[in-house]
Amino acid sequence: MKQIHYLTPGPTGLYPTVKQHIINALEQDICSISHRSKKFEEIFQETTHNLRLLLGLPSDYHIFFTGSATEIWDRIIENLVEKTSFHLINGSFSKRFYNTARELKRNAFRYEVEFGYSPAVDEISIPVGVEVICFTHNETSSGVAMPLEDMYKLRSRYEHMIAAVDAVSSMPYPSFDYSKIDTVFFSVQKGFGLPAGLGVWLVNKRCIEKAKDLHSKHVCIGSYHNLISLEEKSKSNQTPETPNVLGIYLLGKVAEDMLTKGLDTIRKEIDLKAQLLYDFFDNHSYFETFVKNKEHRSKTIIVVNSPKPASELNRRLIEENIQIGSGYGKYKESQIRIANFPGTSVETIECLIKKLKEL
Amino acid sequence: MKQIHYLTPGPTGLYPTVKQHIINALEQDICSISHRSKKFEEIFQETTHNLRLLLGLPSDYHIFFTGSATEIWDRIIENLVEKTSFHLINGSFSKRFYNTARELKRNAFRYEVEFGYSPAVDEISIPVGVEVICFTHNETSSGVAMPLEDMYKLRSRYEHMIAAVDAVSSMPYPSFDYSKIDTVFFSVQKGFGLPAGLGVWLVNKRCIEKAKDLHSKHVCIGSYHNLISLEEKSKSNQTPETPNVLGIYLLGKVAEDMLTKGLDTIRKEIDLKAQLLYDFFDNHSYFETFVKNKEHRSKTIIVVNSPKPASELNRRLIEENIQIGSGYGKYKESQIRIANFPGTSVETIECLIKKLKEL
Repeated sequence: MKQIHYLTPGPTGLYPTVKQHIINALEQDICSISHRSKKFEEIFQETTHNLRLLLGLPSDYHIFFTGSATEIWDRIIENLVEKTSFHLINGSFSKRFYNTARELKRNAFRYEVEFGYSPAVDEISIPVGVEVICFTHNETSSGVAMPLEDMYKLRSRYEHMIAAVDAVSSMPYPSFDYSKIDTVFFSVQKGFGLPAGLGVWLVNKRCIEKAKDLHSKHVCIGSYHNLISLEEKSKSNQTPETPNVLGIYLLGKVAEDMLTKGLDTIRKEIDLKAQLLYDFFDNHSYFETFVKNKEHRSKTIIVVNSPKPASELNRRLIEENIQIGSGYGKYKESQIRIANFPGTSVETIECLIKKLKEL
Repeated sequence: MKQIHYLTPGPTGLYPTVKQHIINALEQDICSISHRSKKFEEIFQETTHNLRLLLGLPSDYHIFFTGSATEIWDRIIENLVEKTSFHLINGSFSKRFYNTARELKRNAFRYEVEFGYSPAVDEISIPVGVEVICFTHNETSSGVAMPLEDMYKLRSRYEHMIAAVDAVSSMPYPSFDYSKIDTVFFSVQKGFGLPAGLGVWLVNKRCIEKAKDLHSKHVCIGSYHNLISLEEKSKSNQTPETPNVLGIYLLGKVAEDMLTKGLDTIRKEIDLKAQLLYDFFDNHSYFETFVKNKEHRSKTIIVVNSPKPASELNRRLIEENIQIGSGYGKYKESQIRIANFPGTSVETIECLIKKLKEL
């Protein structure tokens, strides 16, 4: 059977080692072990250990697992925001984070910029009383990545506020200074190239303290997935509920594979592939890179205006066993989104460019 | 490699067809398809169709997916209880449902009976104002199954209240009259013998209306997984978040396998295996069936007092490639729990009994 290269924003192509890890998991009965067993605790411990090493996570950070990154929007608002949050919006996913806060009846402020642009942090003034600033590092809908320095700069003006960062479609690429933010989250079906159904939530001590403070004031912080419950269970390398055991196992294995390859090498490859793609589109008379400011272009989600409908392009690319993403929402046919995740080889990107040249 | 038979309460042994379905899924790139694609919609449609057929679900019921059954405790309280819930408690899981309501700051009433007993429904009086009665059909901790008629009888006295049924460790065994209850939920790593990481929530029209009513009164009913959002997305065979696509696919395939075998046959096999086990333990001088009232004994979770520690028994049973569950909580060593799910053959149960006789 022919192998299709999925350069889609997620779910995406599996990281090259994943199929074998799944087969190994089946041989080791990973799906049948109890989530309260020593064996599960070892898996939890291995996965969090490998992730911590890979991401260079400081020791005051915890790693928790949820059903999805969407769930983490919920949990951040529930656990860290008693009344007021502030959202930088520049696309559909940052807007959904904002809408989550509103659905959870919080007083949510926003600073919104046009689709395809990154927030101009010097212009931003955050109201007194805001408890959490919600950043979206990589807007999966528009292909804008917010420069880390912009994030840190804004946060440094409001150090008493908690900084929450949605890095759903950029992890493990960004090299965060974790001392300048408080919580980061992502899902596994993007940069890690894993089956969907698992969210990963990195949380520092300050967040735990905030949740405990709210809890002590009898504010509702949720139930099984509140930070107190997650922290308590994680002390014994367990989760409050029966989790996606296979997903946690696979994440640990892929994190190990990435450690072996080296995150520096992975980042350099992503930089190289992104440069190949942007150079091609910038010098093409037909396609047009959507994000104009080069400083704001995502390395992992490349968005391009296409005169030919995205569905038509995909029909042609499938001849080369490549599938790319269509545009998001109203841009479904007029834009394409190319995922540039660690699992995609330079050769596949070169093959894509060659084929696009021919069209 | 030797095959171990996991007769554990969940995660448990995989249903015999699951490994092949996982391999098929990998060949078909199920883990890489977009959750907004036609292909995913077909999977969602097939899974809900098969489940509907298998369970004999009426047309006014919806099928929704979550990250776990634990999540559904949360969502039931959020979506269906503005102020007051009522809980029948007879073990650790029914108590956690009650605790969830309290953590979510609801006014939760309870009727509690001793561990190993089923609620005496004639004695129960439910306060005025209660919105949802929370039943636990099958107490995974104690091995008590509440007779369906008891459930219907209590509910018939309070028809204006919503009846919510936790059937986590009994589905697909119980033959519910869905017109006499309003919502049922379960997880897939028990009776369906699937990898953990997916909850299934069956919801009738009345529940949707209640959630819409609360929403219109500006009561917070949660965000992405509130019933309005789940219903809206399910109309196009989608989910609000990127779900556990592989889990949904596998559930549909196993439901299809169960349809082929016939749920009647599966139920008769479970009855037969349960009878073999209870007969053995009832007539054994050493072991003692924990649940005294035969009407209240679970067919799917058999709990037994064991003079020999559960860990010691498991060390011996592993010689026959069998693993059983230990007791729950403080009964960890003094009780054993044997899962009698559809995936376990009569032969495996006979082998277990033979080995226990020798010990």
